[in-house]
Amino acid sequence: MTAKPSAHHRTGDRELCQVLQQQLDCSIPLVSAMQLKVAGIDALGLKLRAPLPPNMNLHGTAFGGSLSAILTLAGWCQMWVSMRRSSVHGELLIHRSEACYHLPVTGAIEAYCPTPPLPQWQKFVRQLQKKGKARMRLRPVILDGSGQEAVTFDSDYVAITREP
Amino acid sequence: MTAKPSAHHRTGDRELCQVLQQQLDCSIPLVSAMQLKVAGIDALGLKLRAPLPPNMNLHGTAFGGSLSAILTLAGWCQMWVSMRRSSVHGELLIHRSEACYHLPVTGAIEAYCPTPPLPQWQKFVRQLQKKGKARMRLRPVILDGSGQEAVTFDSDYVAITREP
Repeated sequence: MTAKPSAHHRTGDRELCQVLQQQLDCSIPLVSAMQLKVAGIDALGLKLRAPLPPNMNLHGTAFGGSLSAILTLAGWCQMWVSMRRSSVHGELLIHRSEACYHLPVTGAIEAYCPTPPLPQWQKFVRQLQKKGKARMRLRPVILDGSGQEAVTFDSDYVAITREP
Repeated sequence: MTAKPSAHHRTGDRELCQVLQQQLDCSIPLVSAMQLKVAGIDALGLKLRAPLPPNMNLHGTAFGGSLSAILTLAGWCQMWVSMRRSSVHGELLIHRSEACYHLPVTGAIEAYCPTPPLPQWQKFVRQLQKKGKARMRLRPVILDGSGQEAVTFDSDYVAITREP
């Protein structure tokens, strides 16, 4: 297990997008049910997208449960990408999340998770290598059509080094 | 719109279970995808149940997104039941939630939401009638096989009186 934090802010990777999508499709049945797609990965962050109809509630807007599931994945996927770029490995779990629903989501759902800032990321990598366990706080969001924050998701992810 | 708080702590209702299940099945596609069932309603609380396979993650345990979606619904359904019992009506939305993942869920998912305590409920009903908007804090949980809290979900639901 080697860390390469310098490779962290690499530009986008279409192949990474495909590998991640494949892994989600194969292992999490709800991803297909929500028709969730990895819409983009670049140095700044990661975007997930899902159409409204399979994620509707009884008011005809997006179901809060779909939104929190998509945000859970947005943070998880961002961690997966960052860990892969830094060549660190481990089991990756969500530990805590606070969802705030500010505005109803009335169209296609787009979740965005910014890449963790480099100093925090380097600390995370060092701690994972030293202690076999590390935590990262992320804040994925869902934006409405006009770019306003519709749902925010303050969340903690934990990585645990796999036994060899 | 009339409030009957005295009818709040009525015993279980199999018919209520069926009506609620039908409403969920018809209006929230993710409910079928998660194979979520209203497993029980009584004076003390409400139980939802879903099998593990459609709600799995890539570690073979329950996907955090499924768990938060099921907990979102557990609180929502409890509010729906309590409002129906008190004969108050309104649009019902989740406003905020904090999910804490304490233990992995390795089998069938069972979510439980206790009935709101009567004094808080009466306050909620009064406020909804007076101001057309009221908020209720709930704490649905997912218990593991041995009865320990696997996931807790401190959450705020808001009801808004429909325009006539």
